Amino acid sequence: MTKAILTLNAGSSSLKLGLFDEALEALATAHVDRLGAPEASLKLKDATGAAMPVPSFGPDDFATHTIALRSALAAFRNDLPGLEIIAIGHRIVHGGVDHAEPEPVTEVLLDHLERLSPFAPLHQPHNLAGVRASIEAFPGVPNVTCFDTAFHRGHPFVDDTYALPRHYYEKGVRRYGFHGLSYDYIDSVLAAEEPDLRAGRVVVAHLGSGASVCAIHNGQSMACTMGFSTLSGLPMGSRAGELDAGVVLYLMDQEKMGAAEITELLFKRSGLLGMSGVSNDMRTLEASKDPHAREAIDYFCHRVAREIASLAASMGGLDGLVFCGGIGENSALVREEVCEALEWAGVEMDVEANKAHARNISTGRVAVRVIPTNEELVIARAAKGALKL
Amino acid sequence: MTKAILTLNAGSSSLKLGLFDEALEALATAHVDRLGAPEASLKLKDATGAAMPVPSFGPDDFATHTIALRSALAAFRNDLPGLEIIAIGHRIVHGGVDHAEPEPVTEVLLDHLERLSPFAPLHQPHNLAGVRASIEAFPGVPNVTCFDTAFHRGHPFVDDTYALPRHYYEKGVRRYGFHGLSYDYIDSVLAAEEPDLRAGRVVVAHLGSGASVCAIHNGQSMACTMGFSTLSGLPMGSRAGELDAGVVLYLMDQEKMGAAEITELLFKRSGLLGMSGVSNDMRTLEASKDPHAREAIDYFCHRVAREIASLAASMGGLDGLVFCGGIGENSALVREEVCEALEWAGVEMDVEANKAHARNISTGRVAVRVIPTNEELVIARAAKGALKL
Repeated sequence: MTKAILTLNAGSSSLKLGLFDEALEALATAHVDRLGAPEASLKLKDATGAAMPVPSFGPDDFATHTIALRSALAAFRNDLPGLEIIAIGHRIVHGGVDHAEPEPVTEVLLDHLERLSPFAPLHQPHNLAGVRASIEAFPGVPNVTCFDTAFHRGHPFVDDTYALPRHYYEKGVRRYGFHGLSYDYIDSVLAAEEPDLRAGRVVVAHLGSGASVCAIHNGQSMACTMGFSTLSGLPMGSRAGELDAGVVLYLMDQEKMGAAEITELLFKRSGLLGMSGVSNDMRTLEASKDPHAREAIDYFCHRVAREIASLAASMGGLDGLVFCGGIGENSALVREEVCEALEWAGVEMDVEANKAHARNISTGRVAVRVIPTNEELVIARAAKGALKL
Repeated sequence: MTKAILTLNAGSSSLKLGLFDEALEALATAHVDRLGAPEASLKLKDATGAAMPVPSFGPDDFATHTIALRSALAAFRNDLPGLEIIAIGHRIVHGGVDHAEPEPVTEVLLDHLERLSPFAPLHQPHNLAGVRASIEAFPGVPNVTCFDTAFHRGHPFVDDTYALPRHYYEKGVRRYGFHGLSYDYIDSVLAAEEPDLRAGRVVVAHLGSGASVCAIHNGQSMACTMGFSTLSGLPMGSRAGELDAGVVLYLMDQEKMGAAEITELLFKRSGLLGMSGVSNDMRTLEASKDPHAREAIDYFCHRVAREIASLAASMGGLDGLVFCGGIGENSALVREEVCEALEWAGVEMDVEANKAHARNISTGRVAVRVIPTNEELVIARAAKGALKL
């Protein structure tokens, strides 16, 4: 038997699983797409990231979160025989004001977290469905929730509030910030490997299909470009990012669009996809000759640079800049455009190191780093810690 | 007879008039408040800004824009006898994509401008009502329109668009920017008095009850914190400024608020007023001992500093910073808090000069200036120029 900690990131039609041993060494990952649909798919990767063979499945084997979870685990039977799941850690998008530390799941906690669904209607219900599925699929195994908002709970008031009548703040309309598990991971790497840099003012750019930037001073999140929702700040694969609220009022008042339509527009049809008309994927845009694809890339880089400067002002300066996430770790072009726009702020790029995706890509006063993020490890670590395993 | 150019800034319930002689020397100003209501009031000031005596009026003398315009002009009869209005210049909030230069009024132009009302429903119809009133009150006198968006028409695409599907850009959902008459004035002062500074990268902070910040490089507006509407960017007297579009979706979806209610909340009950619960007026907040008033001031200054840094990134650096508008010209506290937050970017304040509201308040690399703005002069100048007077 191999005792394992399972991490789970459940979306509306996807499941991402991670498996770690008791020493928190990665064992494997699984990724279910189009969950609930006949064309559901499963991919498995080993600890090195290499694809593993996937057994064949029937059309109903990914019908629900619970069934998909059982199927995905069963798929490891040949390569990882005798897995014993001893804990399950869950990525939960929203912990609200009250939940920052990882917490063992109880019915009371789930009830609290369900009440936060109006703050994150596209994510929270699916995250919690993943918890319910785990309870059903693995009776008796303890579950732990980890919150994407947790890392940001200590924002100073000026970066926690909007300029609305105060009772909105009291009822929870705040700048929560997200991608906290990723920022937590990057911060832990800096703490271990570059403690002097970590003691300073660091901006971390988590650039993936979801994207945000976070100001971290001496390990404390000071501000984040995502705020109340996962829509604000940077443009993303299909999300608009920063938008004049007057545009939403225009869509309501002049185009007679309702909340569901506007949500669909701003979350699913905007961002890189909407601007380019080509793709929501930065790799596809970089390979495209369509001038609209190039404009989308330029807009993305421009907004990243503007937000980094704005966050530097939140901390009173900039000592370090870390790129992570799929785009941040893999796009030399994006990193170069962003750094060029920030030369005035002390950012000097080592162009060759950047092309080689080196970890240290700076030559100037501001330390610029590329650090692959690992949200699953943060979840597994938290589950182990919360359960005192 | 004194030939005079009249400038007009017409709101829903207010009229601001300026009178200039043919050499563009200011003669006087008039301000009608609560137009259309029984408690309508009129204030007159001479060229030095000193209050002038106001004759008594009847309850119907400010019933409409046209009547109010006639009444306000008649009030100058004693102190400025024999005024002959030879041209009227109008502040129009929105010129859309096509109107940047000041234009003599024609029916075709008014028709074009009326079609832009959906982009600025709180301002454009009232501005145009002021034009109609002038035509009625002063038949035969030529009218010229000046647009608050005009100064910004040359924004690079990355600061002209949002990350929406491209057809929204084509139909006019763009980052127009506003307060262009004020920025135009400040730019003209720098051109005349500090041409070297003007050739560089200057951020101008127009801080009044409406507030925005503009990046100007060698006289060209590069980006502005106000975009599609006058709601975005900085918090203002009663406007929210930067807001996660997800908050608007939350208000629609969870609080079942409609466009009119949300507009009223975000334009009239938010900003300094909403945060403080005390006042929309910075002077009142500075004098208040209420901790919420102080929080509103701090939030305002923090957002100004963040936006200045963000705009510096839009230009690739910062050589100068100019404060103008009611708050920018008069609040040493706001200027000090903003500059303190930007020390890392080369801003060093001369604290004593700042307290004395001197024009030059910097000691460091970045030139920091306080320059009283004069939108009326820009309008009068434009009217004179467009009519070749």
